[in-house]
Amino acid sequence: MQNRTLVKNLSEMMEQTVTVAGWMHRLRDMSKFGFAILRDRTGLVQVVLNPEQLEQLKGLQVETVLKVTGKVVKKQSKDPNANEVEIQAATLEVLSPVTDVLPVEINNAEIDAHLETLIDNRVVTLRNLKQRAIFKVQEAIVRGYRAYMARQDFTEIFFPILAGAASEGGAEFFKVDYYGREATLTQSAQLYKQMTMGVYEGVYGLSYSFRAEKFATSRHLTEFNQLEFEMGFVDGMDEVMDHAEGSIREIVATVARDCSGELALIGATLPPLGEHFPRISLRTALEAYRDEAGIDETSEPDLSPAAEKWISTVWAPKHHGSGFVFVTDYPTTKRPFYAMRDPKDATNTITFDVVGFGCEIISGGMRVNRYDDQVQAIKDKGLDPAQFEDYLMMHKYGIPPEGGFGMGLQRLTQNLLGLANVKEATIFPRDVQRLRP
Amino acid sequence: MQNRTLVKNLSEMMEQTVTVAGWMHRLRDMSKFGFAILRDRTGLVQVVLNPEQLEQLKGLQVETVLKVTGKVVKKQSKDPNANEVEIQAATLEVLSPVTDVLPVEINNAEIDAHLETLIDNRVVTLRNLKQRAIFKVQEAIVRGYRAYMARQDFTEIFFPILAGAASEGGAEFFKVDYYGREATLTQSAQLYKQMTMGVYEGVYGLSYSFRAEKFATSRHLTEFNQLEFEMGFVDGMDEVMDHAEGSIREIVATVARDCSGELALIGATLPPLGEHFPRISLRTALEAYRDEAGIDETSEPDLSPAAEKWISTVWAPKHHGSGFVFVTDYPTTKRPFYAMRDPKDATNTITFDVVGFGCEIISGGMRVNRYDDQVQAIKDKGLDPAQFEDYLMMHKYGIPPEGGFGMGLQRLTQNLLGLANVKEATIFPRDVQRLRP
Repeated sequence: MQNRTLVKNLSEMMEQTVTVAGWMHRLRDMSKFGFAILRDRTGLVQVVLNPEQLEQLKGLQVETVLKVTGKVVKKQSKDPNANEVEIQAATLEVLSPVTDVLPVEINNAEIDAHLETLIDNRVVTLRNLKQRAIFKVQEAIVRGYRAYMARQDFTEIFFPILAGAASEGGAEFFKVDYYGREATLTQSAQLYKQMTMGVYEGVYGLSYSFRAEKFATSRHLTEFNQLEFEMGFVDGMDEVMDHAEGSIREIVATVARDCSGELALIGATLPPLGEHFPRISLRTALEAYRDEAGIDETSEPDLSPAAEKWISTVWAPKHHGSGFVFVTDYPTTKRPFYAMRDPKDATNTITFDVVGFGCEIISGGMRVNRYDDQVQAIKDKGLDPAQFEDYLMMHKYGIPPEGGFGMGLQRLTQNLLGLANVKEATIFPRDVQRLRP
Repeated sequence: MQNRTLVKNLSEMMEQTVTVAGWMHRLRDMSKFGFAILRDRTGLVQVVLNPEQLEQLKGLQVETVLKVTGKVVKKQSKDPNANEVEIQAATLEVLSPVTDVLPVEINNAEIDAHLETLIDNRVVTLRNLKQRAIFKVQEAIVRGYRAYMARQDFTEIFFPILAGAASEGGAEFFKVDYYGREATLTQSAQLYKQMTMGVYEGVYGLSYSFRAEKFATSRHLTEFNQLEFEMGFVDGMDEVMDHAEGSIREIVATVARDCSGELALIGATLPPLGEHFPRISLRTALEAYRDEAGIDETSEPDLSPAAEKWISTVWAPKHHGSGFVFVTDYPTTKRPFYAMRDPKDATNTITFDVVGFGCEIISGGMRVNRYDDQVQAIKDKGLDPAQFEDYLMMHKYGIPPEGGFGMGLQRLTQNLLGLANVKEATIFPRDVQRLRP
């Protein structure tokens, strides 16, 4: 729009005539005159309306789209230090009229509605300042991730979604009617990223994962994104963990730099990073939980949700000044067929999780890279190597020692912002019940 | 890998001892000694092997993964100006042995195999230097696109893939068994990008499109990506076209800057950009085709493939020094329900295509933004507005005048590189027959 001034730039235009455009966030009728609060993507501004302009808006509801030309002046205030501006409207044009009352009020700090109502009306509830801010932060997370990876000279891959027969065991697959045959939606980009790592050596990308799980909890979506990474020619897992730590640091730094306004709106505080994220084995983590928190789960093969919370929000900040901790050496039974086993103990894998914000946010590790070992590992999980012919082609024709990780984007957004439900961190969430909007 | 030197950096390490790692691209046994050509992600280097090292490689095939430590020396050459280096191996370690003969030879400039064979063996054929280069260019295309959009202060959106009932008419949808109900895979992010434009005003992103078309031509994939854009508060379509032109210019500039080696390997030449991409109506384009090429298709409602080729590779370069041309004013019958109609002539739409590299690469235009108009336009296409309740919520509660476009990533990659088939420009292509690898 020619000569449009964004709200964020108005304070530099004092006493000048400007054109602003946006949504009517609020309207106050003072009978002799009126105030319209106008919202654009950068903020809110008060517009002072004369009686004729007020008349123009009679019968119209909030969210009507307006274009206003007028002078920028200092806003009247009892606080002598207040430095807000307002616009004295000279001309007012209705770009798109709204005549229906909104299904949900969106112009308060918080939307007072159940989560399902909020998502049913996503098209309008996203216009709420706080809701809108969530996905600006999500965008910054991805921006930080990509910036880190691109600087390492790694290659971004665009992963496929439609696949043939179910390739990995475990959780359930969605089935697609594919010209009378059965196709599935990928549960993870794991196999594809390994295949391309064997070409580009270091690869990353944003993948889609689909899980036909029967759970309808606050942690489960049927469709979500993962920030993927895979790298060959590594000496060991520390090199992979270095990149996990490096990318988290850059994500947090990017959000801090670009989203201070959004964080304030949401009321979120970023966690401490410390000098290094501690790297401890699962055993050590469970022993610390027993010795310092007094809860003995040392016979468990994994961290419980309570232990994850304690280790990342109590133990790691206290001992290492960090809100993140690497937990390594998970038992073979808890890890997938592509996880590399410890050569000294086949019941143990060379894998890690990153626990942060009170829960697991990254899962990764070294992978099996020799053909015979991978065929055996597939068999050991009760799967059929013949189902993995394309995948195993990679091992048969040579891939280097390698590792990688995946990080759920919506879950990371949820936890970074302290949101109660992962669906709040998903722009158009899909769950067992929901396929819209 | 500690102290690994990439092949591209070897010329700076003359007479020093380095460690390189990569795939055995070729092996030449000279009986008293040998040469191994080692390939990493940055290039090829010759390694001189002594008899013991040659013995180590006996029985191993190309693509065996090696780690070599040795001195960098000038390569013996009959050409006194040649400045290549080679490595005199001191130690040689086999990181991953390959004992099977490759299904396809990949170490020549071109892979001598049918396209289907090439894709069946994608996991290894991607290692071919030319194949590998294609997706480095694709990555650069996306990088250029994002850089342009981010600089305009637009917001990146991560679009959903699972949807409810088929929302747009026309081409066919893939059906998903969703807990006993029917879901579909999105054919386009059109409706979602419009919904988020109504919040962030300018949005972009990489979407997935799924089309259950029955065609098995060189132009059709069942799954592909689109570079999406949508923007509100525009005065008219020229503003949308400015961003189409700006993003294409940045894409071409990014590929030129970052991918000169890849373009040389593929043998591709970038098209001229000219000072401005010409903007002409469909009628003017067809009249030029009649008057200058002698082919009269002026009664057609669209450009034929031959006309697209002529207008972008003959007419536009000749008259405007540009390989790209905007063609505007398509008839309402040829455009979807969300296309804005010309207020002066309802049979005409305010839409455009960008024709470049001989074919349509962008489709875009202004959208209907008033509720009543959109309800009517849906009915006019024989569709049921009740099926579009979520979408229409956006219009009911106010969206500004707006427009946008979409650009097929794989088709753009194909045409930019002059590849015969779009599947060559798709890392893991899916078509009527193919769901693997």
